[in-house]
Amino acid sequence: MRVFEIHQAFGLDNLRLTERSEPTLGPGQVLVRMNAVSLNYRDLLMVRGMYNPRQPLPLIPCSDGVGTVVGLGKGVRRVKEGDRVAALFAQGWISGEPSHEKLRTSLGGPLDGTLTELMVLDAEGVVPVPEHLTDEEAATLPCAALTAWSALVTQGEVRAGDTVLIQGTGGVSIFALQFALQMGARTIVTSSSDQKLQRARELGAHEVLNYRTEPEWGKKALELTEGRGVDHVVEVGGAGTLEQSLKAVRFGGALSVIGVLSGVSSPLNILPILMKNVRLQGILVGHREGFEAMNRAISVSRLRPIVDRSFPFEDTPQAFEFLASGGHFGKICLRL
Amino acid sequence: MRVFEIHQAFGLDNLRLTERSEPTLGPGQVLVRMNAVSLNYRDLLMVRGMYNPRQPLPLIPCSDGVGTVVGLGKGVRRVKEGDRVAALFAQGWISGEPSHEKLRTSLGGPLDGTLTELMVLDAEGVVPVPEHLTDEEAATLPCAALTAWSALVTQGEVRAGDTVLIQGTGGVSIFALQFALQMGARTIVTSSSDQKLQRARELGAHEVLNYRTEPEWGKKALELTEGRGVDHVVEVGGAGTLEQSLKAVRFGGALSVIGVLSGVSSPLNILPILMKNVRLQGILVGHREGFEAMNRAISVSRLRPIVDRSFPFEDTPQAFEFLASGGHFGKICLRL
Amino acid sequence: MRVFEIHQAFGLDNLRLTERSEPTLGPGQVLVRMNAVSLNYRDLLMVRGMYNPRQPLPLIPCSDGVGTVVGLGKGVRRVKEGDRVAALFAQGWISGEPSHEKLRTSLGGPLDGTLTELMVLDAEGVVPVPEHLTDEEAATLPCAALTAWSALVTQGEVRAGDTVLIQGTGGVSIFALQFALQMGARTIVTSSSDQKLQRARELGAHEVLNYRTEPEWGKKALELTEGRGVDHVVEVGGAGTLEQSLKAVRFGGALSVIGVLSGVSSPLNILPILMKNVRLQGILVGHREGFEAMNRAISVSRLRPIVDRSFPFEDTPQAFEFLASGGHFGKICLRL
Amino acid sequence: MRVFEIHQAFGLDNLRLTERSEPTLGPGQVLVRMNAVSLNYRDLLMVRGMYNPRQPLPLIPCSDGVGTVVGLGKGVRRVKEGDRVAALFAQGWISGEPSHEKLRTSLGGPLDGTLTELMVLDAEGVVPVPEHLTDEEAATLPCAALTAWSALVTQGEVRAGDTVLIQGTGGVSIFALQFALQMGARTIVTSSSDQKLQRARELGAHEVLNYRTEPEWGKKALELTEGRGVDHVVEVGGAGTLEQSLKAVRFGGALSVIGVLSGVSSPLNILPILMKNVRLQGILVGHREGFEAMNRAISVSRLRPIVDRSFPFEDTPQAFEFLASGGHFGKICLRL
Repeated sequence: MRVFEIHQAFGLDNLRLTERSEPTLGPGQVLVRMNAVSLNYRDLLMVRGMYNPRQPLPLIPCSDGVGTVVGLGKGVRRVKEGDRVAALFAQGWISGEPSHEKLRTSLGGPLDGTLTELMVLDAEGVVPVPEHLTDEEAATLPCAALTAWSALVTQGEVRAGDTVLIQGTGGVSIFALQFALQMGARTIVTSSSDQKLQRARELGAHEVLNYRTEPEWGKKALELTEGRGVDHVVEVGGAGTLEQSLKAVRFGGALSVIGVLSGVSSPLNILPILMKNVRLQGILVGHREGFEAMNRAISVSRLRPIVDRSFPFEDTPQAFEFLASGGHFGKICLRL
Repeated sequence: MRVFEIHQAFGLDNLRLTERSEPTLGPGQVLVRMNAVSLNYRDLLMVRGMYNPRQPLPLIPCSDGVGTVVGLGKGVRRVKEGDRVAALFAQGWISGEPSHEKLRTSLGGPLDGTLTELMVLDAEGVVPVPEHLTDEEAATLPCAALTAWSALVTQGEVRAGDTVLIQGTGGVSIFALQFALQMGARTIVTSSSDQKLQRARELGAHEVLNYRTEPEWGKKALELTEGRGVDHVVEVGGAGTLEQSLKAVRFGGALSVIGVLSGVSSPLNILPILMKNVRLQGILVGHREGFEAMNRAISVSRLRPIVDRSFPFEDTPQAFEFLASGGHFGKICLRL
Repeated sequence: MRVFEIHQAFGLDNLRLTERSEPTLGPGQVLVRMNAVSLNYRDLLMVRGMYNPRQPLPLIPCSDGVGTVVGLGKGVRRVKEGDRVAALFAQGWISGEPSHEKLRTSLGGPLDGTLTELMVLDAEGVVPVPEHLTDEEAATLPCAALTAWSALVTQGEVRAGDTVLIQGTGGVSIFALQFALQMGARTIVTSSSDQKLQRARELGAHEVLNYRTEPEWGKKALELTEGRGVDHVVEVGGAGTLEQSLKAVRFGGALSVIGVLSGVSSPLNILPILMKNVRLQGILVGHREGFEAMNRAISVSRLRPIVDRSFPFEDTPQAFEFLASGGHFGKICLRL
Repeated sequence: MRVFEIHQAFGLDNLRLTERSEPTLGPGQVLVRMNAVSLNYRDLLMVRGMYNPRQPLPLIPCSDGVGTVVGLGKGVRRVKEGDRVAALFAQGWISGEPSHEKLRTSLGGPLDGTLTELMVLDAEGVVPVPEHLTDEEAATLPCAALTAWSALVTQGEVRAGDTVLIQGTGGVSIFALQFALQMGARTIVTSSSDQKLQRARELGAHEVLNYRTEPEWGKKALELTEGRGVDHVVEVGGAGTLEQSLKAVRFGGALSVIGVLSGVSSPLNILPILMKNVRLQGILVGHREGFEAMNRAISVSRLRPIVDRSFPFEDTPQAFEFLASGGHFGKICLRL
């Protein structure tokens, strides 16, 4: 079978299409023929050696993908041949509290990921996907969609009528926008691109803020809520955006920390966290029970993930370059 | 000023239009000229002496109403003259846990209610209403809408993708349907009238069940969820419907007990509560903080309450008779 | 190996000591040599055919037991040989929401239970027990202790300073008393025996009520809380005690429904559930994550389960008869 | 009446004993003769002009105090003459969500505080205190105790068996230790003083860590929990201690940010928040409903606040100097 792997060293140049022998199926496992894969920023960091420089190589990157069950190990009852399933990001996190053990079972590092024609997974580690989605759309769910879902629903408990501020228009952010809208929330989206903000509006965003022309967007968001502040911030920028987020958020509000695009470290003034009774919640994807709940929501609303562009499997390096360029709106996928 | 009061004894015949002297405004209070009133089943029970036979008379019934602030007592800052406000059902329940003290401050019994041209209320006991609503629509919020909101949101924590089964098409039930839809839930509505079920479908209900032709509607609901069961039941029937509700609900699911239309007492088998890990939550309207959150939700979704029919103030007895007939779909209002 | 099984028909007379061949160990499983077993009321109902009359026979009854790991199947890493472990009541409920699938994996019916010298269990279905406990003490944890823990902690969220009313002095009730005390709650215990109430006092119960001499114990409990009502009721009586429990509980309080000792069905007036905003939560044991959390609590407080009496394995029928007599205080165990 | 006020400028030198005319009692208010006052670090920052440099002067500092009701305004029913009550820190935060409006009603800035012989307060803004406490002990509750309670209970939901790491031995920290112990948690206390750690042990602390001799105390705490990590950190250090706290905390664990003793700003690496799914919750004292719940807990456990030293009212400046020296263990009080 063909796979892409980070070959001998990190770096996009070392992402190689290569042959591996087909995996063997053990008891309790399933064999999945992959139909589509989706890229996350984490995958780019991994390929570049910035996510975990100590990750042993070679490694098949990527955690998001959807395929068809083509083989069942002994005793498997959760799925049957022909089922279309997604891989679970953290293979061992079925439900309940996170733990070191559960979280070190992530695909695309430390475990081999989804950029492969065939995968053997534990039957507990796959999830049937909503029928109305194309393969590429379904491939975007495991990491990006579930992170947004965990932020707003599992841990955020956003309610109808809440105001949710979403930073950016990348994969997680667009899912956060779509889920917030499904949940009856009011939404504010930030971006540096008026064109992307226009697309966010078309998706239903109530308010948009260009943080380039409006560097004090935190104060602006406060005004848009008549001084009350937003209930929830989907924080993808990390250290560089926290200051404005803390200006935007209401007393008793919440920030879901899901990304560190603008840096992992900066001189943070923690006083506003204290004085405004704010909650910062780190979000690391989520568990299978959340995935299944999310799928029910996606089915009810007939939500369609936004796939910006889809590449043939062979063009995976180009897809990563497109991701690195930051020009996308929503998700980038690969077809097998 | 003119008021309707339950005069010397209970019964619809004793509901009299009469004159009272205008109330005087104390510090911290507001004077409200009522524009519209809305009826609840509780009000009918109260008039008939079935809600609280020991309620002292005369009593001005009804808890739901909206009006314009026409006078401010000393020190009032929460609202200003000209504001359009609704009365809070339990005047003393601002937020937090319920208590005997907070709940015995209900309008329309034990306290005089909203069937009056003028009302003096504590400034803490009024709530500005969404601008896009007519007076009659806004008048439906304090009891019916807030009960539905408390059931699904404050206490129910319904999430997008959950399945909510709603009994009937009365005031609370239609609000529950509208809120559940706004929250991205899947909805199942029951009624004995195909015509009402058709209207529920037009409002967005995903599934409908006629409990007359389908007396085992609990099992049917189970089938509609592929055997998983519904996540939440809005239980308005009480003792007579609990058995089917417990068949419909999933393991770990919830029932919001908000009404007792089919009786307060019956031989209930509590074993399913235990064996299915079910939660029964009694709902008694809700607090002001919930009202304010609900108003934000109503504003975001531009939700319009369903007013079945509106009567002139003078025709209040006829409005009660229409309520008693059970022919309505949504709310019945009075115009002042 | 020797086992006790319900042989050809239900009834204590059909509980037979018999020989079965040793089970074989598959991948992911562990072989456990049982050291002690503990009885629950559910086991008595099962033996008598009252729990599930359609349960296929023969069946090894009992869900609670502790043993030593004496064999490891392929791939097992959770435990090692020599570990002392308890069996998990619902073998498939590791964490998260309950479901029909998870709950039909219960030991002692539908699956064979712990009244056996040797057991093969999935490695995920065993839980290491606190070191300071004897085998018999540890054997009481899986069903009785975990039910009490789920009632008060996982689902009840009892807080320090809350008042918890505990019905009776059986296994679950005494654990509920001990946990409530560890959590800093105030406790009220009911019983028909002054002698048992005296023992409850010695364990730390703040107040005791003899429901025989005080049939209106609900009102009495209300008085003991200066009219505020108790925050939480551990309801083991079921239909026959709910009425008094609803008198005792505060506005917004909770009842954990964990047993039906006084009957499963009775004419229940549900109005107080509604009017006092009460929550009734059915409790069906609990998941492994709760078991592990409970074990940490037991270790911190050095809690010792109350074992009323311990019988040799061969005297299992006598142990069941003692349970049926209702004369016990706390748990009844068997030594292997 | 005599009061201490920050006179014309900030600074301990400007803390003056002076005379003010007695306040007049309005409707809904109570007159309280203060018996004891307790100091918080916030009060020291306020006096020095470091808490809010724009606070108008003169200001009576301090938020914590207990007194006797000696006068009732019209309509007051919550308390009666002779009741011993504490002042509520945020006078307008009765229950529910925090808000800018509720939090700007704090005593000791922006509103005049408790360093006075007589106070007029809204009847809603006082709370009866547990009977078994001395005046000085009761005076420590409003800010220090309630902050610890909100951190662990209202927002932290610490459970029996959890491990709580508490930084330091100041007022809030010692209350956190006492509450954590009452709740059945395992406790780890840090300090730079072996003597203070010894006293923490005598109060019941399970483990102690001297952060001077053990600068990597975060890793040490991880070891003390067999690598699992602590469930909850009471973070009083702020920017300077967060790094170690994030090492100590478990996956999915929580940090209550209650103080900034080591600085408000520092280069924080937020990656661990994300990668360990950690929750940071800012804590700003709490609401009256929490205060009342805390009082019930204190009454049940007969908890005695730790008063390190008590000064006569006239020696308030010396009391502040003692606080500034950091030599105290628990609380510093003033007698009137």
